[in-house]
Amino acid sequence: MPREAKYDVLFEPIQIGPHTLKNRFWQVPHCNGAGSDRPGFQAAFRGMKAEGGWSAVFTEVCSIAPGGDVMPWVASKLWDAGDVRNLREMTDAIHAHDALAGVELCHPGGLAANAETRAPAKVVSQIASDINYLANGRALSKREIAALRREHVEGFKRAKDAGFDLLTFYAGLGTFPIYFLYPFYNKRTDEYGGSFENRIRFTREVLEDLRSEVDGVAIGMRFVIDTLEDPYGYGDLGVRANGEGKDFIAALDHLVDYWDLNVGTLNWGEDAGSSRFFDTNHEAEYVKVAKQATSKPCINVGRFTDPDVMIGVINSGQADIIGAARPSIADPFLPKKIEEGRFEDIRECIGCNVCVSRWEMGGPPIWCTQNPTSGEEYRRGWHPEKFSTARNADKPVLVVGAGPAGMEAAVVLGKRGFEAVHLVDAGSEMGGHLNWMTTMPGLRAWRRVAEYRERQISKLDNVQFIPNTRMSAQDVREYGAEIVIVATGAHWAGDGMNTPTHDPIAGADATRPDVATPEQLVVEGKQLGDHVLVVDGDGYHMASTTAEFLARQGRRVTYATHWETLGPYLRYTLEEQRMYQRLTELGVTILSQHLVLSYEPGKAQLVHLWGGNEVTLDVDSLALVTGRYSDSALYDELADDQAALDEAGISQLHLVGDAHSPGIIAQATFSGHRLAREIDSPNPDVPLPYIRERRLVGATEDDYTLGAATLLG
Amino acid sequence: MPREAKYDVLFEPIQIGPHTLKNRFWQVPHCNGAGSDRPGFQAAFRGMKAEGGWSAVFTEVCSIAPGGDVMPWVASKLWDAGDVRNLREMTDAIHAHDALAGVELCHPGGLAANAETRAPAKVVSQIASDINYLANGRALSKREIAALRREHVEGFKRAKDAGFDLLTFYAGLGTFPIYFLYPFYNKRTDEYGGSFENRIRFTREVLEDLRSEVDGVAIGMRFVIDTLEDPYGYGDLGVRANGEGKDFIAALDHLVDYWDLNVGTLNWGEDAGSSRFFDTNHEAEYVKVAKQATSKPCINVGRFTDPDVMIGVINSGQADIIGAARPSIADPFLPKKIEEGRFEDIRECIGCNVCVSRWEMGGPPIWCTQNPTSGEEYRRGWHPEKFSTARNADKPVLVVGAGPAGMEAAVVLGKRGFEAVHLVDAGSEMGGHLNWMTTMPGLRAWRRVAEYRERQISKLDNVQFIPNTRMSAQDVREYGAEIVIVATGAHWAGDGMNTPTHDPIAGADATRPDVATPEQLVVEGKQLGDHVLVVDGDGYHMASTTAEFLARQGRRVTYATHWETLGPYLRYTLEEQRMYQRLTELGVTILSQHLVLSYEPGKAQLVHLWGGNEVTLDVDSLALVTGRYSDSALYDELADDQAALDEAGISQLHLVGDAHSPGIIAQATFSGHRLAREIDSPNPDVPLPYIRERRLVGATEDDYTLGAATLLG
Repeated sequence: MPREAKYDVLFEPIQIGPHTLKNRFWQVPHCNGAGSDRPGFQAAFRGMKAEGGWSAVFTEVCSIAPGGDVMPWVASKLWDAGDVRNLREMTDAIHAHDALAGVELCHPGGLAANAETRAPAKVVSQIASDINYLANGRALSKREIAALRREHVEGFKRAKDAGFDLLTFYAGLGTFPIYFLYPFYNKRTDEYGGSFENRIRFTREVLEDLRSEVDGVAIGMRFVIDTLEDPYGYGDLGVRANGEGKDFIAALDHLVDYWDLNVGTLNWGEDAGSSRFFDTNHEAEYVKVAKQATSKPCINVGRFTDPDVMIGVINSGQADIIGAARPSIADPFLPKKIEEGRFEDIRECIGCNVCVSRWEMGGPPIWCTQNPTSGEEYRRGWHPEKFSTARNADKPVLVVGAGPAGMEAAVVLGKRGFEAVHLVDAGSEMGGHLNWMTTMPGLRAWRRVAEYRERQISKLDNVQFIPNTRMSAQDVREYGAEIVIVATGAHWAGDGMNTPTHDPIAGADATRPDVATPEQLVVEGKQLGDHVLVVDGDGYHMASTTAEFLARQGRRVTYATHWETLGPYLRYTLEEQRMYQRLTELGVTILSQHLVLSYEPGKAQLVHLWGGNEVTLDVDSLALVTGRYSDSALYDELADDQAALDEAGISQLHLVGDAHSPGIIAQATFSGHRLAREIDSPNPDVPLPYIRERRLVGATEDDYTLGAATLLG
Repeated sequence: MPREAKYDVLFEPIQIGPHTLKNRFWQVPHCNGAGSDRPGFQAAFRGMKAEGGWSAVFTEVCSIAPGGDVMPWVASKLWDAGDVRNLREMTDAIHAHDALAGVELCHPGGLAANAETRAPAKVVSQIASDINYLANGRALSKREIAALRREHVEGFKRAKDAGFDLLTFYAGLGTFPIYFLYPFYNKRTDEYGGSFENRIRFTREVLEDLRSEVDGVAIGMRFVIDTLEDPYGYGDLGVRANGEGKDFIAALDHLVDYWDLNVGTLNWGEDAGSSRFFDTNHEAEYVKVAKQATSKPCINVGRFTDPDVMIGVINSGQADIIGAARPSIADPFLPKKIEEGRFEDIRECIGCNVCVSRWEMGGPPIWCTQNPTSGEEYRRGWHPEKFSTARNADKPVLVVGAGPAGMEAAVVLGKRGFEAVHLVDAGSEMGGHLNWMTTMPGLRAWRRVAEYRERQISKLDNVQFIPNTRMSAQDVREYGAEIVIVATGAHWAGDGMNTPTHDPIAGADATRPDVATPEQLVVEGKQLGDHVLVVDGDGYHMASTTAEFLARQGRRVTYATHWETLGPYLRYTLEEQRMYQRLTELGVTILSQHLVLSYEPGKAQLVHLWGGNEVTLDVDSLALVTGRYSDSALYDELADDQAALDEAGISQLHLVGDAHSPGIIAQATFSGHRLAREIDSPNPDVPLPYIRERRLVGATEDDYTLGAATLLG
C-alpha cells in the first residue's frame, strides 16, 4: 500500500549549498572496514545505500594526510592520487543512483597511532595520549599550525577531485577543531588557546580557506554539540550544547552549508548508544539546541528506524534531515521501503553494536546482526533485496529449528523461489533462543531479529512454519524433504566447562537446585539463593545480563571472570562502562582476573589468575555462563547414516548456526543466509569463491609508488 | 679481522631432507605484518635475511585454508593460486641469495576468528575459545577430520608450488597437532582422544599423507616440546619435555626431516621471552631433551645474539642449528657479520618485544627498536647495511643530543659520507635517557641500543662525539654547522599532567621532597618515603619499572592506573603476566581503573573510574609516571628566528626523537634514521613518497576473483 501523506515530509527536497538533497535521508559517516584500500567493498557498500534511497551517502572518517594514519583502525584516506582514484569508485557508485556523495574529512591528530607511516603524532598541547600508549605527540608551533591548515585545504581539494559533493569538516573524536576547542585538550597560552575566539581560530581559518579555494561543493561540519558530564564526558573541560556548543555553531554558521550534529567524546558509546542503554532519538535534548543558532539545514542521529519518530523530528523543528548510520547498515533500503509504504519490510537495527565492534577491533570488515549481506555486496555479490531463483528450487526443503539461523535460511530460500520450505520447531513460535533471551533486562530490541523474519515468512506463500514439532532423525527421513537444514541451536553448559581451565568446575552441576544456566533461570524460572556467584567464561554480554537479571530479582550477586574486565567484548560494543555502572548500581560485586575453582553450597573457591592468592566466597548458589554446547545430535545422527539418507531421498543435509558453532546472533543469521544463497552450488557446505580486494583501482605493476606528500608537513 | 676457527662450526653445511643447509643459521618463523597480502614487503623483508647470510628463512604462521583466517592478526595464507603467486615472490627473493625458503603451515583452528571469511571455527572438542569471545567452534566429526587432513595436504602442495624448500608442519599456538595432543583441548572419547596414540593419530595421518604425496621438499615440524607448569602453562593438561614431548618426537621421527623446537602455550611470552624476565638460551633445559629422541637435525631458539653462546649450543649437543627470530630482525646480517669476524658490528636484539607488540595489536607492520630499517626494505627501499652518499655531504652537521635519535642520525649521516658530523651532548657519555633508564631493574639489555651506536661512531672517522657541552641557541648558531639536528629528548612530567583528566594532579609537585619523577629517582637518587604511590598515565613499562625500583629499595608501593591492567601495552609485549607477578611478589598493591585525584603527604585521594567510589590511601610520597614533556626549547628558539639562522649560514634545522614527540625508543631511532636517510631530499621534514603495497603480484583488473576452495570443507 502507498505511504500515508504524513510521511511526505521525509521526501521533500532540500537545498544544501549548491546541491539539492532529493529527500531527508542522510547516511552519516560511519566505518565499515573498507577505507580507501578496499575500493570495491567501499563502492559496493555505499552504492547499495544510494540504491536503497539514501539521498546522501558518506564515507567513514577520512584522513587528509599521512600524519593522520589511524591503523590498525580502518579509515578512508585522501593522501594522494591513488586514494582519489580509489574513492572515485565510491562516488561513481553513489551518483549512479542519483544520490550525493559525502566525505568526512579530518586530520585525526593524536588519535593517529601512525602505525604504518610512523609519523609522529600532532597535538594542540602535549599531554600523554588518551588512546595510544606510545606517543605524546608534538604540540604544534604556529608555523606547524599554518602547515596543518594547508594540509586541510589540500585534502579537501582531493575530496572534490574524487567526486564528492558534500565535504564535511569533522569536529569530533580526536580531530583538530575539537582539540583546539576543548579546554580538555587545549592548554595553549598563545592566540590559539584561552578565549573561545582563540579556541575556534584554527577552525575558522580552515573554513575561510576552504570557502575561498574550494567551490562547487557543499561544505559542512559534523560537530559534537555536547561533550556530556562526568563520568561520561568532559564536564567543564568540554563544551555543552547550551554554552559553547551553540556558540560554536553561531560563530561559524556563515561559513558552512550544513550541520551534522551528535554528542559524546572518545567514549563514543554515548553517541552510538546501544539499545540496552539508550532509546531511539536519545540525543534530541542536546542536538535540538543547534536550531537556535543556525539557519542552515541540520542533521540529527538517534538510531532512527521508526517513520513516525522521523517525522516527529522534522515536524517538531528538532532537525531538517534524518541522519542514520546503524539503521542504514541494518537496512540499506530503509528510505525506499518508507517511500513505498512497505513498513513491514523494514529490517530494523537492534542497536547491538556488533557493527561498531568489528571496527573497534581494528581491521575486520563490518558485520551486522540483522543484515547478513552487509560487507558482502562486493566480495560475495550479495544484494540485500534481490535473490536469484535457485537451480534446485523444485526440491522440497525441511528446516529444523526456527531460531535466527533457521529463520534466515527459510526466508532466503523462500525468496529464491523454492516451491516448498517447511520451517519446523519444537516450540510454539519462531525465534529460538531469542524467545527467552530477549525477555532478559535490556534485550527487548534484539527481538526484532525474529520479528522481521517472522513478518517476511508470513508474506512468503512458499514458506510454512510448523510449530510444536520436535523431530527425531527418523521423523526427518520420513518427512519427504530432499534438502534438510538442521538449525537446532545450542545450550549453555551445565557443568561449568570453561575457557581458562578447559575443565568443568568442581561442584558445578546445573541439575542441582542451587546451580543454574541462563536458560534455566529464564525458561524454567529456576530460583537461586540469596547470594549468587555468576561465572563469566563467555566474554560477551550473557554473564553481565544474567547478573543484572538476578540482581533485579533482589539477590546479592558476585560476578567473577578470569578476564581483566567484565565481558571484555563489551568494550568493542561500547557497552563496558555502562554495564559496569549498571551492575555497580545494582550492588553487584565484580571480581576480575579470578578463576572459579570449585563450588559447594555456602562456599566458592576462587584464585587470582596470576597472583595466585585464593579467595573464598560465602555464596549459596551459582549461575554458569561459561560456554555453550551445540545441539547437533539430530544432525550427527542423520549424517552418520548416509545409506538411510539416500534411501529417504535426502540429497542435501546441512548444519547451520549455533548448532554448528555457538556464536553471536550475527554469525547465526550469516550462517543461514550464506547456505541459502549457495544452496544450489556444487557443495553448499563449502562457500563459493569470492572476490578478494584490489588495493588500487586500475593499477598496473608500475603504479605502486604513491606520494606521501605531506607526511610531516 | 677474520673469525676465529672455533666459530667455523656455525658454517658447516648440514643435510635437511633433500636439501643442504649451507650454514647453521635458521630464521625461524616469525610475524612481520606482511602476510600474503603485502607481497613486496614480505619478499624484501625475507630476502634481506637471505642476503645477510641466513641459510633458511621462513614465513610467519601460514594458514592452509580459509577456515583458518586469523584476521585481524596478519598471517601468511596459502589458500589459492593468488597466494601462491604472492609468496613465490618471497621464495624467489630468498633463492636469489642461495638460501632455502621455509614456510610454517597450519590450520589455526579455534585461534581463527575468521573475521574476514566468516567461516565457523573448527576445534577438537567444543570448549569456549581461549582467545575469541564470540565462537565456541565445532568439534570435528570423523568425516570432518578426514576433510581437514586433505586440507593440510592441499595446503602443503600449494606451498611446494610457491617454491618453498622447507615445509614445516606447525605444532604450536592453536594448531591441530596440539589441539589433538593436549588433554587441555582434547576431551574426545573416539579414536582421536584418550591414549597418546590416539592423540597423535591426526598428526601422524597428515604426515603419512604428506610423505606419500609431496616429494622433493624437506618436511619437518615446529613443536612445542614443553607446555610448562601453572601459572605459565597447562601443567598436567599439556605435555612436558621428558614425557609426551619426547614421546611425540620419537613416535613421529621417521616421518620428518627436522625438528624446530620451542616451549610455551598461547601465552607465548614464555617462548619469545622478554629480556626483562629471560636470559638468552632460556629454553635449553627443555628443548635439549629432544636429542634423546631423534636422529634428525634440531633447531633451537633463545634470543641468540652472542656467537660464543651459539657455538656452545652446537658443541654441547643441545641442537644442530641456531634458530632466531628477534635477533634476525634486529640484525638481518648477523650470520654474515659472524662469518666475517665483525662482531662489533652486530646489532644485538635487546629483547624488548616491540616487534611482537606490533603483531599482537593486529595489523601494523613490524617495528624494531634496534633496526629502524625493519619493515622498510620494500616501502622505503632501505637496506640495513647500505647507504647512499648524500648530495649535501659536504655540509657540516651538528647533532645536539646523543640519545637514541641523535646517535642514530649521526651514525647514518656518517655512513652517508658526510665530511663532518659533530654529535654534542651535555652529558659525559652517549646514550641520553638510556644512561639512567637502563640502570633500572630488568632494563640492562636495552643499553645495547646505545652500545651498538657508540661502537659504530667510534669506527666512523667523520663522526665526532663532543661530551659535556650544553648548547644555547647562540652556541648553535656560532658553531659553524650548516645542518643542525636537535635531539634533546624529553622528561617525565613533574606536575602529574595525566591522560585521563588532562590536568595536573592536585598536590603533585616534583620540586617537593616527597614527590618524584623517574629521572629524579634514578639520576638524582631522590629518596621517597615508606609508602609510595606510583601513578601510571603512560601505559607501557615505566610505571611498573618504577614500582619495582622502589619496592626493591624496601619501600611499600601502591601502583594506581586508570586502565584496567598494569601498563596495558605490556600485554602486547607479552610481559603483563610476568610483571604482575613480579610486583605482587615484591608486595606491590595494584589498583586498576582508579584515578588519582589529589595528593598531600600522608594522603592520596583516588576514585574508581566508573564506579565513582572514592578511596583514600595513607601514602607518604608520590612517584609520577603520568606523561612526558619534550625538551624542545632549543629547537623552538632556533626555529623562531629564521633571520638569525640565515645569518649563521644554517640552511637546515630539524627536530627528531623525543624532543619532537616523546615515544618509545623504536620511534626515536626511526626518527633519527629517517631524517638522515632523507637529509638531502627537497624537504627532509616531509618523508619521501614510499611504495604502497600491491595486494596481488602481477594482477590485472580482471584477476581478483580467487577461489576460497575449501572454506568449510
